[in-house]
Amino acid sequence: MNVGSYTYEEFLQKVREFHGGLAPGVILGGMIVDTAKRNLPADCLFDAICETDKCLPDSIQMLTPCTIGNGWMRIINTGRFAVTLYDKHKGNGVRVFVDVSKVKEFKDMDNWFSCLIPKKEQNKERLLDSIRDHGYDVLGLQHVKVDIGSLPNKEIADYAICKKCHESCLPTGSGVCLACQGKTYTSPANEGCCCCTKSN
Amino acid sequence: MNVGSYTYEEFLQKVREFHGGLAPGVILGGMIVDTAKRNLPADCLFDAICETDKCLPDSIQMLTPCTIGNGWMRIINTGRFAVTLYDKHKGNGVRVFVDVSKVKEFKDMDNWFSCLIPKKEQNKERLLDSIRDHGYDVLGLQHVKVDIGSLPNKEIADYAICKKCHESCLPTGSGVCLACQGKTYTSPANEGCCCCTKSN
Repeated sequence: MNVGSYTYEEFLQKVREFHGGLAPGVILGGMIVDTAKRNLPADCLFDAICETDKCLPDSIQMLTPCTIGNGWMRIINTGRFAVTLYDKHKGNGVRVFVDVSKVKEFKDMDNWFSCLIPKKEQNKERLLDSIRDHGYDVLGLQHVKVDIGSLPNKEIADYAICKKCHESCLPTGSGVCLACQGKTYTSPANEGCCCCTKSN
Repeated sequence: MNVGSYTYEEFLQKVREFHGGLAPGVILGGMIVDTAKRNLPADCLFDAICETDKCLPDSIQMLTPCTIGNGWMRIINTGRFAVTLYDKHKGNGVRVFVDVSKVKEFKDMDNWFSCLIPKKEQNKERLLDSIRDHGYDVLGLQHVKVDIGSLPNKEIADYAICKKCHESCLPTGSGVCLACQGKTYTSPANEGCCCCTKSN
């Protein structure tokens, strides 16, 4: 069994390296992405829409040229565990999702995916075996058309300099960037903070 | 010169492979991430905040364990070209940003970063040389404290099944997922669409 151009074991190693551990969602996600790719023509120049920000974006970034930073992958978070790969010019494509009715046939996968029992009570080894053996069996596929014109713009926005912090930023009506308006979670550190010992 | 654990040439090759091309923003971004990492203690277990969705998230994903799918990188899009790496338990960290007043000293970098002339009129070779030679010189660094408690939750949200599409989804008040409420850009494809020829 292959996932994309990798053998299954190679793919698991890639998951460890990129995602930081053998997350079931990234592994099942790899099968979702692989299924979508195999249902597009080989020469299709595609973009990706990921419907969750959990795990699945990493499967896309590992198995396709689409990343969050190059703009070819968009996350439109509805919480559905689904990927759409579509012709970036025409919008035609395929959407692959987890079919909950099929997951129910596999107890360990169901316990995990449907959150039936707490994570610490799940048997991870059996879960990973179940995904390896039946992950491709729980997927659904839809042929779809993406309304490219209505997608959030991925072009570089106009450039502005914030009147307050003087950094480049997204333009705002007031001339003060969103961070200086309060959309920030950072504040200057106190003197001698324990973590930030300058070492270079 | 190294960027993270890579030589400069190795880093450029990584950028080509992961991002799909030698984007100036990913290269300068690598210097931003490298500077932030070198200003944290070596044993610091950190998360990342990226203030733009353009290019820089890929630099973070290439040079740190933080990805969009494992939740250790958050994008809080103010459009500022800046990264904060912070102790994930205490919140202490460093924020590295592009100092526009320093960029002005380097014409090719300024033409690009400050959008002074159209992209097609910029000299990409000279721009990449300028970033290679002076990228580290245009950065600013702040010691910051991240208010961890106020960050958007990255834990797995409660599980729900949409009454309409019957997929797993983020819970909503109505029981109908956000996609079925209209937050979607896909519709069923017409019969015989040109792109989605099933090939497996």
